[in-house]
Amino acid sequence: MGSNQFGELFKVMTWGESHGRAIGAVIDGCPANLEITEQEIQAKLDKRKPGNSPFTTPRKEPDTVEILSGVFQNKTLGTPISLIIYNRDVNSSSYEKLKELLRPGHADYTYREKYGHHDYRGGSRASARETAVRVAAGAIAEKLLLHFGIRLSAYIIQIGSVFANVKETPFEEIEAGLQKSALFCPDQRAEFAMIEELTQIKEERDSLGGAIELISTPLPVGLGDPIFQKLEANLANAMLSIPACKAFEIGSGFEAASMKGSEHNDPFIHEMGKVKTATNHAGGILGGISNGMPLKIRVAFKPPSSIGRPIQTLTTKNQKALITQPKSARHDPCVVVRAVPVVKAMCALTLADALLLRKTAVL
Amino acid sequence: MGSNQFGELFKVMTWGESHGRAIGAVIDGCPANLEITEQEIQAKLDKRKPGNSPFTTPRKEPDTVEILSGVFQNKTLGTPISLIIYNRDVNSSSYEKLKELLRPGHADYTYREKYGHHDYRGGSRASARETAVRVAAGAIAEKLLLHFGIRLSAYIIQIGSVFANVKETPFEEIEAGLQKSALFCPDQRAEFAMIEELTQIKEERDSLGGAIELISTPLPVGLGDPIFQKLEANLANAMLSIPACKAFEIGSGFEAASMKGSEHNDPFIHEMGKVKTATNHAGGILGGISNGMPLKIRVAFKPPSSIGRPIQTLTTKNQKALITQPKSARHDPCVVVRAVPVVKAMCALTLADALLLRKTAVL
Amino acid sequence: MGSNQFGELFKVMTWGESHGRAIGAVIDGCPANLEITEQEIQAKLDKRKPGNSPFTTPRKEPDTVEILSGVFQNKTLGTPISLIIYNRDVNSSSYEKLKELLRPGHADYTYREKYGHHDYRGGSRASARETAVRVAAGAIAEKLLLHFGIRLSAYIIQIGSVFANVKETPFEEIEAGLQKSALFCPDQRAEFAMIEELTQIKEERDSLGGAIELISTPLPVGLGDPIFQKLEANLANAMLSIPACKAFEIGSGFEAASMKGSEHNDPFIHEMGKVKTATNHAGGILGGISNGMPLKIRVAFKPPSSIGRPIQTLTTKNQKALITQPKSARHDPCVVVRAVPVVKAMCALTLADALLLRKTAVL
Amino acid sequence: MGSNQFGELFKVMTWGESHGRAIGAVIDGCPANLEITEQEIQAKLDKRKPGNSPFTTPRKEPDTVEILSGVFQNKTLGTPISLIIYNRDVNSSSYEKLKELLRPGHADYTYREKYGHHDYRGGSRASARETAVRVAAGAIAEKLLLHFGIRLSAYIIQIGSVFANVKETPFEEIEAGLQKSALFCPDQRAEFAMIEELTQIKEERDSLGGAIELISTPLPVGLGDPIFQKLEANLANAMLSIPACKAFEIGSGFEAASMKGSEHNDPFIHEMGKVKTATNHAGGILGGISNGMPLKIRVAFKPPSSIGRPIQTLTTKNQKALITQPKSARHDPCVVVRAVPVVKAMCALTLADALLLRKTAVL
Repeated sequence: MGSNQFGELFKVMTWGESHGRAIGAVIDGCPANLEITEQEIQAKLDKRKPGNSPFTTPRKEPDTVEILSGVFQNKTLGTPISLIIYNRDVNSSSYEKLKELLRPGHADYTYREKYGHHDYRGGSRASARETAVRVAAGAIAEKLLLHFGIRLSAYIIQIGSVFANVKETPFEEIEAGLQKSALFCPDQRAEFAMIEELTQIKEERDSLGGAIELISTPLPVGLGDPIFQKLEANLANAMLSIPACKAFEIGSGFEAASMKGSEHNDPFIHEMGKVKTATNHAGGILGGISNGMPLKIRVAFKPPSSIGRPIQTLTTKNQKALITQPKSARHDPCVVVRAVPVVKAMCALTLADALLLRKTAVL
Repeated sequence: MGSNQFGELFKVMTWGESHGRAIGAVIDGCPANLEITEQEIQAKLDKRKPGNSPFTTPRKEPDTVEILSGVFQNKTLGTPISLIIYNRDVNSSSYEKLKELLRPGHADYTYREKYGHHDYRGGSRASARETAVRVAAGAIAEKLLLHFGIRLSAYIIQIGSVFANVKETPFEEIEAGLQKSALFCPDQRAEFAMIEELTQIKEERDSLGGAIELISTPLPVGLGDPIFQKLEANLANAMLSIPACKAFEIGSGFEAASMKGSEHNDPFIHEMGKVKTATNHAGGILGGISNGMPLKIRVAFKPPSSIGRPIQTLTTKNQKALITQPKSARHDPCVVVRAVPVVKAMCALTLADALLLRKTAVL
Repeated sequence: MGSNQFGELFKVMTWGESHGRAIGAVIDGCPANLEITEQEIQAKLDKRKPGNSPFTTPRKEPDTVEILSGVFQNKTLGTPISLIIYNRDVNSSSYEKLKELLRPGHADYTYREKYGHHDYRGGSRASARETAVRVAAGAIAEKLLLHFGIRLSAYIIQIGSVFANVKETPFEEIEAGLQKSALFCPDQRAEFAMIEELTQIKEERDSLGGAIELISTPLPVGLGDPIFQKLEANLANAMLSIPACKAFEIGSGFEAASMKGSEHNDPFIHEMGKVKTATNHAGGILGGISNGMPLKIRVAFKPPSSIGRPIQTLTTKNQKALITQPKSARHDPCVVVRAVPVVKAMCALTLADALLLRKTAVL
Repeated sequence: MGSNQFGELFKVMTWGESHGRAIGAVIDGCPANLEITEQEIQAKLDKRKPGNSPFTTPRKEPDTVEILSGVFQNKTLGTPISLIIYNRDVNSSSYEKLKELLRPGHADYTYREKYGHHDYRGGSRASARETAVRVAAGAIAEKLLLHFGIRLSAYIIQIGSVFANVKETPFEEIEAGLQKSALFCPDQRAEFAMIEELTQIKEERDSLGGAIELISTPLPVGLGDPIFQKLEANLANAMLSIPACKAFEIGSGFEAASMKGSEHNDPFIHEMGKVKTATNHAGGILGGISNGMPLKIRVAFKPPSSIGRPIQTLTTKNQKALITQPKSARHDPCVVVRAVPVVKAMCALTLADALLLRKTAVL
């Protein structure tokens, strides 16, 4: 299928280097007749835009998306939808001096070893910049989900030592909290502490890890496929494909390892004419297939590798060296702020694919 | 690619229901000239066999594997390798009375809702029995890995409230510890406590969750592919496809969320003529591509849903009902004991695929 | 997707060597709730069985198919359907003396060169025996087609110098003619001449080429997908994957090269409340998508390479050598007799896949 | 894999409507370190450019290709190569009056029926304009082929009633003939007759079919894979995916149906230290795998459906109607002139894929 492509039926291929001419995505397999406009996609992109807050990189990219094909009179044609974002604020000069250094935590070393030839500017293909077009493609997937009555909510639950308290908060309440949040965190008290910790870490010229949770409105029953395309397996794949992601949980997650069966089993109940489960340790999926309950997943991100402090490393010639940054250099102190829309987009793409596949399961 | 298929180049398709005639796997894409015998595969299967220990289900399956194609004179032909295990000890009578009940934590409900027609006997396709043929296929993948000098070690790090202490233990020491272990746990002290806890939970007619860790010898640089086929993304997919798996971590995992960049960055060093990193928070992967360090992942499993205690549930007609088991009924009190070979097999399949794909990355 | 696999959603993987233990097919993606029995599949297989007529190889294979999974109470489960045919009449001794010779027209040379290791017995994986399981899988696909009201008819239109006259014969008339035919030829006059020519070529210990045509009842509009999955492109792929196939035509085929646009254009007409075309030079497809008219394709097969006459060739050590056969040796004098059910099966598999994909084209 | 995508490892996805903003292709899986420039791709495109000769459509498209990603310092990075051609000379006004008419031979009817929503301008996605980006992508594939010493030559062998005589002409002689040809025909005598016939048909305001042959220098042994990815099966798929293509032959093609085995078998010979075959009825492939001889295929194209003469048809409301064209309207009188580079590109893409796949066949 190709390492730059995601999905079986609702397929997205992304392309583009961080400091190349442009980045883009092509969606192949989006059903015809879905209403979508450039403005709707742009709105999603604007939420991820660098330079949005004091806690994101200052690269000034307008990130203006254009639809080049696949949409006619604001409706999808069933043909490939080509999305493009031209790179504008590209300043590659600072990378000239880095090109002989192995930046710890970055992918330059592995790319160069693997491919022999490498674009050393700005992380190239491994840059988080690539995720901008995932958000653009995800906007179309989210529109498809809406058609099936599905909404998603993603938010920050941890930055460094600060944890948000969102356990059992209903979907609409979370969404309302997010409206008021500057940081994609529905727990206002935690948000203040997070901002404090981020301010502190910036002063230390260091960075912090964090975690994101995503919940959905109740999914229709039957999304996901047995064995290797289990919905949670596809979601885990989707999430770990996001740069800096180190962990994935569904429902009870790692806590399940400490639980008893009698606690973990979600009893089936009949409520308002529907089969539900009294608890949702499953996170909305049984045997790889959605059971009608809300989806609930969590993902963890490492602290950004680029920091202001000097970093001990090697040159490409295996000599010891120090990476130092000018005082003026600024970096994302924490990746989760900008990762929230990406988590949502990757989840939307996974579910859109599952929705289409479900159509083929029965005669 | 199909929900019953795994891998891009080293592809495995599994088939078979728990109480059907047989289960099997077909490997398409295994290179020619790999030496393999039925005995080697059988040896791996014997490690997973039910009825092996007091802590696994008493279903007495000889689980005898046959190679039906693809191997000639004990060497692979480059053609599909068909593996079959006939089901012998199938007693479906107990499922007759369960077929009108929604078993909590099981997949019967979601399968029936999705497909309309369902084989209610023994979990059918969603049964962990399917993983037997993954272990068989994994044996061939492990042989391929050996050809490239890669070895894997998987072991239990948690059962219920007991945690093993294996941090920083070298690969060979872990393997030596496993030789002495009855329970795939290299930490003898923890193993005793685990056995105690398992004995206790059996008496309670309940079940326990657990966690497994896998490490490898240093991987060759260059396995894994950018963006959506990142090695960790494929591994997450592989692990979450195992029944009862709820979480996945690579390297620092969820701990990364609480770390600073200055702590998390693994400094590059030059040692014994090789580029290495001083620490391995990355878990052996940078930007989705192996960096020459050992792979390190962890997975969590929920407690088995089938327990001896009565379980409150619904009938298929939405009436309240109680699932009760005879005293004689026995269940796996914890899935991780039998999941260790499955985790290893899925990792081997993922790496085998990455090894073949790497061949095509350069001219 | 793998070279042993066919289809995007209705996927078939075949496995097995001619002189191995068994051959088989696994169908992944067949929708649930399709009624199918072993007997229905066996009936299709019996039409292809070797030893059926004086003009097919005398290998006596009962070709008994077993369904090992995916079907419960005579209905598909939506899980993989595993089909197996054990090899019985395997006599590999005659191949011992051939193993040092490059048989012209056969695949031993290319397999050996490609894979380094080769099973020299009976053509191994390249043997037409593999097509038996395509026929078995095709039987299930045909059942799916029937659900959508589609029927297929395949028949011989040429053997050596004899051509059948079937132009414009309606579907039902063709089918009626086939009921009476011993040779899958609806033109009785041509059939007599074909039998004569086959008898003659057997005496000459030589072989003959031939051609097959396939028509369908009117297809529903909308099967096939733009650009690379055009219905005719997938059909061409399917047909050229059959051993010995050398050519493919849709509708007007090669004749189109000699035609004018004003002749070739099929005028749209409105008849019995339906949009049709007055002629069908298109063969039922416009722009890769079925237009509601019957499908019409033709395929050509080369004469079998194994003949009774001595054949000049090389040894594997590049020495000149002569392949001679004992008088008692018998070979298929013409492949088309047994290829008819295979052409039908491959067409059914192609259409089944297109039927499922069509479900995902619109919201 | 998606209907707009071609290839397993060397994958190409195309996108774009004829009258949309742009058309493009993304290549995923091209190995790193291949030297390529925009100029080399442009040179191939210029051979296909509309308005090149009196026998092609007068749409004046500069068809300037831009590489947006995947190439750095004129060498491929191993990342996706995004190619774009902006649409300039788009005049959609004439399609306004056609949008209520079912154009015979065109895909508007089937697209509209399938997708419900259709871009009626200029054939939209089904326009031959899409093939421009195939030629661009094919240029990169051809460069890859050159790295393995493979060259391709494609040429016209038939237009209407005129056949070229090229049987057994050696590769270099054909190429030399093409240098002198205005019409991709190496047989000068035939070329004159073709031009005459084209001039005549233009006066008649009608169109003509034609056929193209492609040969290669000897392929390396081992390209192509057993069963469903046979090299000829993939080539047939590739060719029938070209708009207006109606037939495909490999080697002896349809003639094989009239031949005897003793004639058709290509005897193995040893010449200049290499195993060859004395004849090449196989067309360079045995059992789906290249045998070291030159590839030889032929494809037929129907006459263009758009003609100057009035065409009887239906409206979208099922009323009889006449399509008439102004005297000034000009159309491609024959598609083969512009299809030659497309045939070559699709063949190059097929072989590039097979070259990469071959790397994974052995340990």
